[in-house]
Amino acid sequence: MAEKTPALILFAHGAREAEWALPFESIRRRIMTRRPGLAVELAFLEIMQPTLAEAAGKLVADGHAAITIVPVFMGQGGHLKRDLPRLVDDLRARHPGTALTLTPPIGEADAVLEAIGEWVVNAVSC
Amino acid sequence: MAEKTPALILFAHGAREAEWALPFESIRRRIMTRRPGLAVELAFLEIMQPTLAEAAGKLVADGHAAITIVPVFMGQGGHLKRDLPRLVDDLRARHPGTALTLTPPIGEADAVLEAIGEWVVNAVSC
Repeated sequence: MAEKTPALILFAHGAREAEWALPFESIRRRIMTRRPGLAVELAFLEIMQPTLAEAAGKLVADGHAAITIVPVFMGQGGHLKRDLPRLVDDLRARHPGTALTLTPPIGEADAVLEAIGEWVVNAVSC
Repeated sequence: MAEKTPALILFAHGAREAEWALPFESIRRRIMTRRPGLAVELAFLEIMQPTLAEAAGKLVADGHAAITIVPVFMGQGGHLKRDLPRLVDDLRARHPGTALTLTPPIGEADAVLEAIGEWVVNAVSC
């Protein structure tokens, strides 16, 4: 079997409002435009589906042997410091043949913070 | 009295972990570098101080007659759809002489979503 491309999970908080997911769906589309063929799934900590376990299970079932998890969170709070490591430990135990990589949250990416700062400056100038 | 420059409040969720505020402090510094002299305050919905009312009160007391509030939230959930409008209504009632402007959340800014997508693609390539 040909080796599958790496896969990606965008991990976000979740909310009761369906429109809450729109920015994450937009980021997913932008990534797939930049990297056609990359498998990109959304996953949510609470309220929304799929969960991280469901999204990872689907990618593993599809044959992806390497999955990168990107926390689409701004800050390092309890969700990232306690909940997410536990979820990733569970995934590693359940899928020992899958290489799981966890990136820093988007709020630790200089390029993202710089883009936010630039957008805010433009917003306040109007 | 010379008219004061506009002022800006970066409004974020808040968390128990002090380091949670680091990305917002970083964004604040980046904005002040781009716009020296612009008054920029952080404010938090819960747990952390100052509250939005406290931050706005300080800026009004400092003589700023126009304040832009930027929700540093990704998605439109209950906090932005219900909590923030109520807080802004309270501010408008308390400070009728102050022009309060509310921007869309950062998660609705194309430039921000594009920067996140680009950063994620680079992160998964490594």
